Amino acid sequence: MKLSGSQWIAGNPSSESSKTFRAANPATGESLDPEFREASKAEIDAAVSAANAAFDSFRNKLAESRADFLETIAEEVLALGDPFLERTAAETGYPLARCEAERGRAIAHTRQFADVIREGSWVDARIDLPDPTRKPLPKADVRSLFQPVGPVAIFGASNFPIAISVLGADTMSALASGCPVVIKAHPAHPGTCELAATAIHRAAERTGMPSGVFSLLHGTSHEVGIQLVEHPGISAAAFTGSLAGGRALFDAANRRPVPIPFYAEMGSVNPVFILPGALQSRSAAIAEGFVSALTQGVGQFCTNPGMVLGLESDTWDSFCQMAAEGIKKTEPATMLHAGIHSAYLTGLEQRLEHESLELLSRSGTTASDEALEAAAHVFRTTQQGLVDDPTLFDELFGPVSVFGECGGPEDFIELAEKLEGSLSATIHGTESDLAEHRDLISVLQKKTGRLIFNGFPVGLEVCHSIHHGGPYPATTHSRFTSVGTRGIERFVRPVCYQDWPNSQLPMELQNANPRGVLRMLNGHRTRDEVS
Amino acid sequence: MKLSGSQWIAGNPSSESSKTFRAANPATGESLDPEFREASKAEIDAAVSAANAAFDSFRNKLAESRADFLETIAEEVLALGDPFLERTAAETGYPLARCEAERGRAIAHTRQFADVIREGSWVDARIDLPDPTRKPLPKADVRSLFQPVGPVAIFGASNFPIAISVLGADTMSALASGCPVVIKAHPAHPGTCELAATAIHRAAERTGMPSGVFSLLHGTSHEVGIQLVEHPGISAAAFTGSLAGGRALFDAANRRPVPIPFYAEMGSVNPVFILPGALQSRSAAIAEGFVSALTQGVGQFCTNPGMVLGLESDTWDSFCQMAAEGIKKTEPATMLHAGIHSAYLTGLEQRLEHESLELLSRSGTTASDEALEAAAHVFRTTQQGLVDDPTLFDELFGPVSVFGECGGPEDFIELAEKLEGSLSATIHGTESDLAEHRDLISVLQKKTGRLIFNGFPVGLEVCHSIHHGGPYPATTHSRFTSVGTRGIERFVRPVCYQDWPNSQLPMELQNANPRGVLRMLNGHRTRDEVS
Repeated sequence: MKLSGSQWIAGNPSSESSKTFRAANPATGESLDPEFREASKAEIDAAVSAANAAFDSFRNKLAESRADFLETIAEEVLALGDPFLERTAAETGYPLARCEAERGRAIAHTRQFADVIREGSWVDARIDLPDPTRKPLPKADVRSLFQPVGPVAIFGASNFPIAISVLGADTMSALASGCPVVIKAHPAHPGTCELAATAIHRAAERTGMPSGVFSLLHGTSHEVGIQLVEHPGISAAAFTGSLAGGRALFDAANRRPVPIPFYAEMGSVNPVFILPGALQSRSAAIAEGFVSALTQGVGQFCTNPGMVLGLESDTWDSFCQMAAEGIKKTEPATMLHAGIHSAYLTGLEQRLEHESLELLSRSGTTASDEALEAAAHVFRTTQQGLVDDPTLFDELFGPVSVFGECGGPEDFIELAEKLEGSLSATIHGTESDLAEHRDLISVLQKKTGRLIFNGFPVGLEVCHSIHHGGPYPATTHSRFTSVGTRGIERFVRPVCYQDWPNSQLPMELQNANPRGVLRMLNGHRTRDEVS
Repeated sequence: MKLSGSQWIAGNPSSESSKTFRAANPATGESLDPEFREASKAEIDAAVSAANAAFDSFRNKLAESRADFLETIAEEVLALGDPFLERTAAETGYPLARCEAERGRAIAHTRQFADVIREGSWVDARIDLPDPTRKPLPKADVRSLFQPVGPVAIFGASNFPIAISVLGADTMSALASGCPVVIKAHPAHPGTCELAATAIHRAAERTGMPSGVFSLLHGTSHEVGIQLVEHPGISAAAFTGSLAGGRALFDAANRRPVPIPFYAEMGSVNPVFILPGALQSRSAAIAEGFVSALTQGVGQFCTNPGMVLGLESDTWDSFCQMAAEGIKKTEPATMLHAGIHSAYLTGLEQRLEHESLELLSRSGTTASDEALEAAAHVFRTTQQGLVDDPTLFDELFGPVSVFGECGGPEDFIELAEKLEGSLSATIHGTESDLAEHRDLISVLQKKTGRLIFNGFPVGLEVCHSIHHGGPYPATTHSRFTSVGTRGIERFVRPVCYQDWPNSQLPMELQNANPRGVLRMLNGHRTRDEVS
């Protein structure tokens, strides 16, 4: 599988710039072929122009055709075969099985969006029928539905090189809605991105989509991203990554003469509260589950459980001990790239020197710095230690967590009130624990996007009801999700037709309801046609 | 009806500041009693704190109780009787009939939001059932629904002192969703705002809502607005007004350490395209409709038709002539306040001196500057005149419009491409005109929130399908509307429950579906319970 190292703009390779970079195998430090070229300003322009040129033709395709396109992308991704997974493994240090699981998830959400647009009701078609006899003024015929906003810029994550990158739900939901996509490849896995891009291009060609519907740009500098977000031809953007990176691009998007929505998912601390009933009955299982959740993927999840809180007691002490032993048995493993590894080491250093933190446990063997390995670490402190230093609530990306010991339920609430917005919060408890800690749950509801009972936040279910979002700084707009079928709502806006001739309306608004979608007719949901 | 001139914070008057102002009758210049006091920083704090204190209790009320609250607001507004309308008329120069019509609209949308939350399906409840036997991993039980974001700051418009102010759809949709409201009264009609606020407070008291659910703050300076938007206790904001004011507050909202969504509706030029078939068959009726739409409410609508485009021809000339005669018969009328009046005069001056514009017609009698009167003005230019000076596409608030003569359909498209985002675009034509100008419609679809056929953009139908929004600068987020029941979506976010015990779930997510709402169950919409 030959890689070109070039941008892919509207189906064609482009290599204008002399600024180059290479991916590296994080486990070996080996620099990987080929050289990749950073996108020039002219190439960014060309990709955005191609996207705009493709927009009318693409958005006017029948929903069925766009669904075919998505399903063909899934086929073409599978056709990339093992070399695709091997390249991803080489660029990320992930085992092949993880790469395969990610591919499975990407295929699944791609087909899910195809199903959603084939069924069609997602456009939220609404019809209010006219009343020409109404007094004092006749009532107009008013209808509306979602239509795509225009070309979307997408920034993939480093930690999901397949499932939240070129083939991520951001790309698939934008394409599903009818928006062309210009993606900025993550510089840590450019080869994975190029292979994925060729699959999308082949699918576009096979299904007769305009070539500008998808372009791939490379870059290691922030400039490429900023120029892309500032480009007047971009109508919206989506991002998964760090708070610093997301906020910088969010600010650029809002500073534009014409601001655009910038949907960033920036991770969070994902607190876990262990209530007394659970501690009594399931300490060992919770400890085991925690160790597995913390170290899975070398802790490189946005939903990593970075804080665990319990009430001081013998059972809490013994839970801590069991978790400590579990952590000790874990092996250090290779992180995604040198930047993440060094940020992890710096953050660890601060925690190791922190006067309120005590090291509870770490992986039993020494991590190799050459192989960018991270050892899991768990620290322990008191509720007061957490209250005194709010920086302990900040996410440190990697297999690290802080255990906080609380004096009573009111300490839980005080800590919950201090939490910043989080993607998730987890409760381990019995049903009666839940009822007794109603006030805690009430606070957590205001702070998080997802509440989990007796589980762990990693391993997101990709479905219609999932919400992968939350109050800032978890995301830049808590109304939207980056995972699950609701994600398509980020790239559309309502367009309303008043007294518009039936034959000229979008299909979903026509009287006969030829697509058979569920519509709101005079305020009631129905698939009926308008007689 | 006694006015206090104070802030109303959680049901109590507050008059800390020594900074005062008065409303004026724009028609007479008469200064109106009482003196109003500008909100102090401490009063802003107190209002936001009260809103936060009320949030838990308010959001946990049954939907039926919040619906009762809204319906009681409608009752209490009616109970204010004629003195309310008379105060509005005195503060705005609007005839009583207009004030009454606005009250009717406010009552209607208040009851509409009550109906929406009573029915309950708006929360978009979604359930994906678990599959403990799934391989390789069991599938979790995942459910989600919309929940309120927190206290909302609202900035009312000057031009709808009843229907888009304290009693506007912004307030009612926020309260419907479960969000407390802190409103910044428009300084041009503070008495109207105070009376409306007392109605809301009485309704809150009668229905047992926490007092902090609603507060009213006054202020003539930008500071009060900026301090309110920057307050960490505010979770979202909505605004209707000028581009300059909206953008300044939008920027403040985005600069916050924790940015919040700022939904601004800032008006637009609302172009009207008259296609040949319509010009042939209905010139006189269109001219008459145009004159009425332009001068209604002294042109003080966000959807005022500020630009009319047609193809050069004898019928176009005669249409222009008919419109000119109609305009000549109109009378100047009093604008809302001195600021709007002077901005109108300045804008007119620029247009009168503009080398590409020819004055086609103006109101037949002279406007009284003392009575803040505006005469309607219509200018005429060529397509080239418009292309050469993009400032002619800018909205000038008041009864003024520019007629542009185009050489052919390609001129229409060139002008449409140059349009900024607009709340609406109107087409006058026959059905075959529409089919022939498909490319024009395609461009307009990308530029506007509402497409109107053979009508005029003023006189918005308040219903489920209406969209009063559009690409920037019409609004700051084209995904949302400020009028119609979809407006409630601005003040909520999805919250997801994973493996959560049934008895502890919000009612709309419980297996038995006790509220009988339409839900998405494993991807299909149904009111069925989960067995």
